[in-house]
Amino acid sequence: MPTLGQNQYGKAETRVVRIVRDGPVHHIKDLSVSVALSGDMDEVHLSGSNANVLPTDTTKNTVFAFAKRHGIASPEQFAIRLARHFVTGRAAIHTARIRIEEYGWDRIETPGTARHSFVRRGQETRTTQVVHDGERWEVVSGLTDLTVLNSTDSEFRGFVRDEYTTLPEARDRILATDVHARWRYGWSDEREPAPDWDRAYAGARRDLLAAFAETYSLSLQQTLYRMGERVIENAPVIDEIRLSLPNKHHFLVDLEPFGLENDNEVYFAADRPYGLIEATVLRDGVPPRIATD
Amino acid sequence: MPTLGQNQYGKAETRVVRIVRDGPVHHIKDLSVSVALSGDMDEVHLSGSNANVLPTDTTKNTVFAFAKRHGIASPEQFAIRLARHFVTGRAAIHTARIRIEEYGWDRIETPGTARHSFVRRGQETRTTQVVHDGERWEVVSGLTDLTVLNSTDSEFRGFVRDEYTTLPEARDRILATDVHARWRYGWSDEREPAPDWDRAYAGARRDLLAAFAETYSLSLQQTLYRMGERVIENAPVIDEIRLSLPNKHHFLVDLEPFGLENDNEVYFAADRPYGLIEATVLRDGVPPRIATD
Amino acid sequence: MPTLGQNQYGKAETRVVRIVRDGPVHHIKDLSVSVALSGDMDEVHLSGSNANVLPTDTTKNTVFAFAKRHGIASPEQFAIRLARHFVTGRAAIHTARIRIEEYGWDRIETPGTARHSFVRRGQETRTTQVVHDGERWEVVSGLTDLTVLNSTDSEFRGFVRDEYTTLPEARDRILATDVHARWRYGWSDEREPAPDWDRAYAGARRDLLAAFAETYSLSLQQTLYRMGERVIENAPVIDEIRLSLPNKHHFLVDLEPFGLENDNEVYFAADRPYGLIEATVLRDGVPPRIATD
Amino acid sequence: MPTLGQNQYGKAETRVVRIVRDGPVHHIKDLSVSVALSGDMDEVHLSGSNANVLPTDTTKNTVFAFAKRHGIASPEQFAIRLARHFVTGRAAIHTARIRIEEYGWDRIETPGTARHSFVRRGQETRTTQVVHDGERWEVVSGLTDLTVLNSTDSEFRGFVRDEYTTLPEARDRILATDVHARWRYGWSDEREPAPDWDRAYAGARRDLLAAFAETYSLSLQQTLYRMGERVIENAPVIDEIRLSLPNKHHFLVDLEPFGLENDNEVYFAADRPYGLIEATVLRDGVPPRIATD
Repeated sequence: MPTLGQNQYGKAETRVVRIVRDGPVHHIKDLSVSVALSGDMDEVHLSGSNANVLPTDTTKNTVFAFAKRHGIASPEQFAIRLARHFVTGRAAIHTARIRIEEYGWDRIETPGTARHSFVRRGQETRTTQVVHDGERWEVVSGLTDLTVLNSTDSEFRGFVRDEYTTLPEARDRILATDVHARWRYGWSDEREPAPDWDRAYAGARRDLLAAFAETYSLSLQQTLYRMGERVIENAPVIDEIRLSLPNKHHFLVDLEPFGLENDNEVYFAADRPYGLIEATVLRDGVPPRIATD
Repeated sequence: MPTLGQNQYGKAETRVVRIVRDGPVHHIKDLSVSVALSGDMDEVHLSGSNANVLPTDTTKNTVFAFAKRHGIASPEQFAIRLARHFVTGRAAIHTARIRIEEYGWDRIETPGTARHSFVRRGQETRTTQVVHDGERWEVVSGLTDLTVLNSTDSEFRGFVRDEYTTLPEARDRILATDVHARWRYGWSDEREPAPDWDRAYAGARRDLLAAFAETYSLSLQQTLYRMGERVIENAPVIDEIRLSLPNKHHFLVDLEPFGLENDNEVYFAADRPYGLIEATVLRDGVPPRIATD
Repeated sequence: MPTLGQNQYGKAETRVVRIVRDGPVHHIKDLSVSVALSGDMDEVHLSGSNANVLPTDTTKNTVFAFAKRHGIASPEQFAIRLARHFVTGRAAIHTARIRIEEYGWDRIETPGTARHSFVRRGQETRTTQVVHDGERWEVVSGLTDLTVLNSTDSEFRGFVRDEYTTLPEARDRILATDVHARWRYGWSDEREPAPDWDRAYAGARRDLLAAFAETYSLSLQQTLYRMGERVIENAPVIDEIRLSLPNKHHFLVDLEPFGLENDNEVYFAADRPYGLIEATVLRDGVPPRIATD
Repeated sequence: MPTLGQNQYGKAETRVVRIVRDGPVHHIKDLSVSVALSGDMDEVHLSGSNANVLPTDTTKNTVFAFAKRHGIASPEQFAIRLARHFVTGRAAIHTARIRIEEYGWDRIETPGTARHSFVRRGQETRTTQVVHDGERWEVVSGLTDLTVLNSTDSEFRGFVRDEYTTLPEARDRILATDVHARWRYGWSDEREPAPDWDRAYAGARRDLLAAFAETYSLSLQQTLYRMGERVIENAPVIDEIRLSLPNKHHFLVDLEPFGLENDNEVYFAADRPYGLIEATVLRDGVPPRIATD
C-alpha cells in the first residue's frame, strides 16, 4: 500500500469584511483568509474516519467569530491569533498555516461629516502567511501586483550570444514589472516583541518603489537585487525577501515604413511570453525557513 | 440565399504605450485601442474578394503611427483622429467605431530630479467609444471597475412580497458596487467646439463618487439615479449617462451560535449571484443615439 | 430634473445544479441564470419607493423553486417558464429577460452499474436569452468559446494597401477563432409549436463546425458568412444568426537566423491584438428584433 | 551587504503551435513553454554584468527552433530535450527547469478527405515540469482543471465539533472538485529507458477518473487518497503523486418556504470560500525530490 505524505486541509478564500464604527466615522478591513491545518490525518485518508477532522466549515466560522471578537488590527496579527487557536489544545492538529490577502480602501472625501464611504484603492494586494507548529512562528508577508515602469535608465547589453540569439543590445528601453514580493520576518518566538506589522509593510513598500525608481538598470536581475537589498538594509525586522518580477516587455514599434522615427516614444505592450526573474535576498546568517510554499 | 446584415471588422486591443520626454520629466499614456470599420463589405463576405478590405493589421499600424505623429492628448481626441482618418477618402468605409481603454499611472516620488518612474494607479479604467459616419460624431465616454462601498445609510424595505419572497427587510446594510458608467457627450458636429475631455472626465468621476457617498440609500436604484442626476446636472456637455451597478452583496454573518452579537460589524462578501441594476439617465429633449453597443 | 430612460434590474448569475435521479442513473443540468425585469420602475429610482420592486433575492429563489417544481428540460424551456412567471399577473413588470449559460457534463464510464459520476465537458458554453413582454417572445440561443483551427486552406490576399499597410499577402496560413454565435428563433407566438431546442442546438453547432472545416477560406469574413449561411439554410426554425469571431493570429516564426526553413510548421500563438470579425446573417424577410443586447 | 539566495530566470509562457503535415492529414501540438535557468548568476545581480546571462529572448527562440528541428513527440520529451540543451556545454548554467502546459485538440470530422480542422478539447490541461542539473533528471507531470462531480455516494459525518462548529452531518451530498494532480516519475538517469509518457498520462488520467467515480466517499480526503493510490498501484513508472482538490461546495437549497421538498435535487453551486484538500501519496521507499516548486 502506498504511503501518505505531506498533507493539509482547510477552508480557502473566506471573504470577511469587518466594519468598526467610531461614531459617524467608520473603519473597514477587507480580507480573504485561507486556513490550512495538518497533523494526525492518516485515518481520514486511509479509512475515512473523520474523528480528527475539524470541518473546514468550522475554520470559516472561526474566521468570522474572531473578526468580531478580536477585531482585525493587521493581517499578521489576525493570522497569528487564528493559527494559535487552531494549534492550541488540539492533539491532532500540529501545524496551522494562515494565508491572508488584504484589499485596501480609501475614504471618499465629501464636505459632510459622515465618514462611512470608501473607494477600493485598487493597487497592490497586501499578503501574509503565518505558520505555527505550536512552538515556532514564521511570518512571511508581502504584496502582489504592484505594477511599475521606468521609461528610461534601463539597458541590456553584454549578454551571452549563442546560435539562437538574435536579440540586439538595448541602450535605452522601458523596464516594467508587476512586483510580487514576500519577506520573512525574523520574529519567531512569541516571548519576543513582535514587529509593528503595518509600519514594516509601509516601509518595505516604499523601499521597493524607491529602489526601482532610483536604480539605473543594467538588467532586471540587478534592479531586483537593489530592491531586495534596500528592504533588508532598512528593515532590521526582515530577514529575507523573495522577489518574483515578470519582465513585461514593451517593444519599440518600427515606424520606419511610415517615414517616422521612433525615438523611444511608441511601444507595443506585449502580454506573452514574458521574462520571469526570481531571486531571494537574505540577511547574512539568518536561520532557514520552517515552511515551504 | 441568406442576407448579410450588420457587420464590422477591425483590430481589437492594440496595446500602445506613448512616452513624451520633456527633458528628464517623462509623461506616459497607456491605452488599449480597438478599431471597428463598416461599409461596403458585401463582397468579402459573399465571394471572398478583399478589394474593399483594409487589413486589420493596417488599422493596428495606424494606431502606432498616429501615437507618434499626433501624440495622445486624451483618449477621446485620439479616437476622433483615428475615426476621421479611416472614414475620410475611402469610399468603401462608411463608419468607424474606435473604443479605447486608458490605464492610469502615477509618478513614483523620489528625492532625485529624474521623473521617469511610474506606478500603475490600479483603480478604475477610463473608457471611450467614438463613432463617426463621415458626418456626425458620437462620443460615449466612461469608466469601469470603480469599486465603492457605504458601510451604513443604506436600507431596503417596503418591497413586493410574493410566494417566493423570504428576504427580510434591511434597515442598515452595506451597499457596495463596481461602478460601470458611460456618458454620451452632446457634441456631434465638428464645427462646434469640443468639450474639454479630461476636465469632463474628472468632473463626472467626482460627481459619481460624491453622489454615491452622500445619498442615504433606500435602494440601489435610487442611488443609481442620484449618481446619474448629479452628473447630468453638473455637466452641460453630457446629455445622458448609463449606469450598470452590480449589487455586491455583503451578508451579515450570524454569530449567535457562538454567543456573539453582530451589530453590523462582520460581513461575508459574496461573489455570485449578485443583483444587477441598470438604468439610463437623460437630459430632457436630447436626440437619440446613432450607435448601438 | 433629468429623465429616467431604459432600465432593468434582477439577480445575475444564479448558479443552479439540478439532479434527476432515475434509480441509480442520475442526470445533471448545470446552469447560470440571470434575470432582468423592467416595467413601472420610475418611483424606485426617483423617490426610493420599493412598492413595485420584487427583490432580486426573490428572483433567485424562483429559479431554485422552478428547478425543483418543473425540472430543466432545456435552457430555453426553463427560461420561457421563468419569463412567463415574472410577467404574468404583475401589473408593474412589463418585460422579463432571462439569460442562461449551460455547462455540459459527460458521464464517467466505469465498469460498475452506478451512473452518478460526471466530468465537465469543458468545451463551448451553451447560451440562451429569452425576452417576453407579456405578448411576444424572442428566443436568441447560441454558444461561446468553441475554439477551432484550420492548419491550412486559408489565405488572405488582394486587400487594400494604404500608407500604413505592411502586411504581406498570405497564401497558406492558420485560421483560428473562438466561435461566439447567437441565433434567433422564428418562434414568437406561444400558440405556435416551439422548436425542439436541443435538436436545434445540436444542429447549429454541427453546421458551424462543418462549415468552418469545409470552407477554403479567402478571409475570415467569408468563412463567417459560410458558417452563418449553413445554419440558416439547414434550420428552418432559425431566422438569423450573429457571429463574433476573433481572428486568433498564429504568426509563422522566422527560423532563418537558425538555418531552418519554416514550411508552415511552427507558429507563435499571439494573444493581443487580435482581429475581430462580426456579422449577422439573416433569412430573407424576417421581422426585426424586439430586444437589444 | 545582503546575500543572494536561490534565483532563476527565463522566458515564461512561450506559446508554440507545431503542425505536422502528413499529406492531407495534419497533426497539431499546442504548448505553453516556460524556461527557468539557474547557475553562476551572482554577478548579474550584484554588478549588473550580463556576461553569464543567456537572454530570455534566446530561450524563446530555442523553443521555436527545437519545435521545428526535433518536433514535439510529447511535452515530457520536448522538455527533456530543451533542458539538456541549456545545461550542456554552458559552465554558467547549472540547472534548467522546463514547465509545459499542453492544450488538447480533437479533429473536426467531416465527410471530405481533408484532415486539417481541429476543435479545442477544452477539458483538462496536461502539464509537465522537467528539472535537470546536468546529471540527474526529475520529471513531474500532471493535469489541471479536470472538473468532476458525484451526485451521490458521498457523506461527511463523525467529525470533530468545537464551539465554532455548526455544520450538520451529511449522509448524501454532492462531491465536486477540480482535479489538480502532479505525479513524479521514477526515471532520473538518462541511461535507463524512459517511460512511454503519453501512455503513462492516459493511464493516470483514467485511474484518477475511475477512482473518483468508484469510491463511496466518507470525506474528500479519503477520495483523494483512493485516487492517488490507484495511480501508484497501476503505474510502476510513477513514484509519487500530489493532489490538490478544492471542495467545490454544492449547497442543498432550502425549498421548504415554498412548500417544496428538496430531496437532493436542487443545489446552489458556490464559488467561495471552498474547502481545499491537499496530499501526497508515495510509493514506499522512493527517493526524495531534487526540486521544489
